[in-house]
Amino acid sequence: MSLTEQNPETTAAEPKVKMKRSIIDCDLHLVPLRGGFNALKPYLPRFYREQLETWGPRVPAQIGMYNNGGTNGTKNDHKIPPGDETDALNYIRSKLLDKYNVEYGIITGMDYGINTIPDTDYAAAVTSACNDYTIEHVLDKEPRFRASIMIPKQDPVLSAKEIDRVGSHPGFVQAIVSNGAEKPYGHRHYYPIYEACVRNNLPFAIHVSMEGIGINPPPTGAGYVSHYAEYRLARAGIMMTHLASFIYEGVFELFPTLKVVMIEAGMLWIAPAIWRMDQDWKALRHNTPWVKKPPSEYYRDHFRVTSQPIELPPKPELFAPLMDAIYAETNLMFASDYPHWDFDSPQLAFPKMSDERWERIFYQNAAELYGLPQRAAAEGGEGL
Amino acid sequence: MSLTEQNPETTAAEPKVKMKRSIIDCDLHLVPLRGGFNALKPYLPRFYREQLETWGPRVPAQIGMYNNGGTNGTKNDHKIPPGDETDALNYIRSKLLDKYNVEYGIITGMDYGINTIPDTDYAAAVTSACNDYTIEHVLDKEPRFRASIMIPKQDPVLSAKEIDRVGSHPGFVQAIVSNGAEKPYGHRHYYPIYEACVRNNLPFAIHVSMEGIGINPPPTGAGYVSHYAEYRLARAGIMMTHLASFIYEGVFELFPTLKVVMIEAGMLWIAPAIWRMDQDWKALRHNTPWVKKPPSEYYRDHFRVTSQPIELPPKPELFAPLMDAIYAETNLMFASDYPHWDFDSPQLAFPKMSDERWERIFYQNAAELYGLPQRAAAEGGEGL
Repeated sequence: MSLTEQNPETTAAEPKVKMKRSIIDCDLHLVPLRGGFNALKPYLPRFYREQLETWGPRVPAQIGMYNNGGTNGTKNDHKIPPGDETDALNYIRSKLLDKYNVEYGIITGMDYGINTIPDTDYAAAVTSACNDYTIEHVLDKEPRFRASIMIPKQDPVLSAKEIDRVGSHPGFVQAIVSNGAEKPYGHRHYYPIYEACVRNNLPFAIHVSMEGIGINPPPTGAGYVSHYAEYRLARAGIMMTHLASFIYEGVFELFPTLKVVMIEAGMLWIAPAIWRMDQDWKALRHNTPWVKKPPSEYYRDHFRVTSQPIELPPKPELFAPLMDAIYAETNLMFASDYPHWDFDSPQLAFPKMSDERWERIFYQNAAELYGLPQRAAAEGGEGL
Repeated sequence: MSLTEQNPETTAAEPKVKMKRSIIDCDLHLVPLRGGFNALKPYLPRFYREQLETWGPRVPAQIGMYNNGGTNGTKNDHKIPPGDETDALNYIRSKLLDKYNVEYGIITGMDYGINTIPDTDYAAAVTSACNDYTIEHVLDKEPRFRASIMIPKQDPVLSAKEIDRVGSHPGFVQAIVSNGAEKPYGHRHYYPIYEACVRNNLPFAIHVSMEGIGINPPPTGAGYVSHYAEYRLARAGIMMTHLASFIYEGVFELFPTLKVVMIEAGMLWIAPAIWRMDQDWKALRHNTPWVKKPPSEYYRDHFRVTSQPIELPPKPELFAPLMDAIYAETNLMFASDYPHWDFDSPQLAFPKMSDERWERIFYQNAAELYGLPQRAAAEGGEGL
């Protein structure tokens, strides 16, 4: 967590000098650019279009259970001006892409409520519509954007079909689901999704959201928490469950090229989690003989993690060794979470780090994972 | 986790020299000494005694869902010889109290399945029986033992009555419940228990067990995990939920003298958890204005943690600063978990540490929390 997350007003403290080197930002919430679900109407079959007109969006809302930060969950200064999609895109170009010298920005899907509605066919129609909307209004309009394929994860076979339908579009760089889930993601229930990801050479991304909402079980093993701050912490616990599930179910032995991206669940909790798993694996690996190597090696080889919201140890000298412990130099990718209230400015998010580490986290790890080109012209100089 | 947890056979590597200074061991599983539930029959009302004779113990079993380590969950060399309760006690004296120079050993209740049965009155009868058994067969027989009050936590008012019934017995040093819970323990539902703890000057202890079993919700926010190793990790997530719940519900503002003990859920995960909570508290404290100070201060002032199973960072130089980060010098208490399969020998559990730190973790923190006397005769010398 940066200074900006601690106090959304402190964005004023950002250096005035533009960032010299461009970055890749791995968590952007932009679609639909305007109008919410209604923007998807032209892409929906008439059956669901009429339902949408009659009943409204019909998805479980996290805000009905837990509140959020900032103003309506977004940065206080985020105010898209009136106009059409192009005006909205221009606003985002100016406030994000140009301002922070973003070479590529990864859009991480739409409202994940659609991942937690019991009506699976409706979920399939809406996620397809979102993907089509994203192609037309974002990917075809702004070459700096990449996007995530929304899938109706309630039905892994339909999800695989959607990945196959749009997966060859060069703008889509991963499939994405909510962290809230009916089963841990290592479960065989989901394998058709991973087959499709591997077939299309796309990572599988998990973004915090919808824990304990809709068809999902309560957000913790002790039931429902009362407050948003507890909920934020619980999300790390659920992501930890998915991490362990992929490893102990042996998913990477079946899908050796699969990569998994953990988005917005924090990062330093991973260190004690992989230490615990490595120790328990030594003592208990006879129970899961298909787990061939220490869990930390599966984590290192198959997981990538986005930075925001960063936990910072109060003692700064602990930061670098803990970054080592989570393999930040190969596994961590910068994310701003724009335009959410706890947005991390790339100029403020991290304590000072070596130039090599900065370059890996702010560009190369994401470029390698998503197959993105190097910068058009290397500019050299300081990271910021 | 010590060498012994990684491989139960390595207890042979323990130094042959007896420990010079006595210790307090904060997690022992000993009651009933023999015969399981049947040993409680003499302490049960006829109604339940007859039920027990007809139907057997009737409690949800964790082993029905998740397996365990070692042989039947215990150390491979743990074999209580035939005989009566006194013979069993003599065996434990020799294998634990004398062998490891245990000045005080804290017995942490019985089978926590009783905490997760829907029949609350049966739970009340059995927990009372267990407490009476413990007085007669353990506390009155061996002055080095202290014990934990089992409570029918399904009903906080009955639980409070049980704490009031036996809480003045000097052998009981805390009330105890399973980590598996219907609601996070900060919830107001449980307040009668905390009123009784405060009234009797007893800490409230939470011991991992029964997550996702019986009346409890699934063990993770993503439902049921498949394997014991995942389950062990999930337990830390649930303990984290309780930690946050006590803090964000404002329990310590209402009960300023209450202390909470977290048993067997690991320890180093606490560091990133309190960093996350402190940061989120700064940004979101307007949502919970009754939380008056940073969460890490509530943790420091109100929580105590037992050591086993210890996560050890692969880089030894990280161990001491992370011990600082979880306030080990005031908040950590040694536990062996005897006689469970992942028993931590006090001679092997920790990397080398300063004499002052050893003394706090192996004796003084527990002595202060539980009001236990100093050693009869200080022997000085090395910690081990």
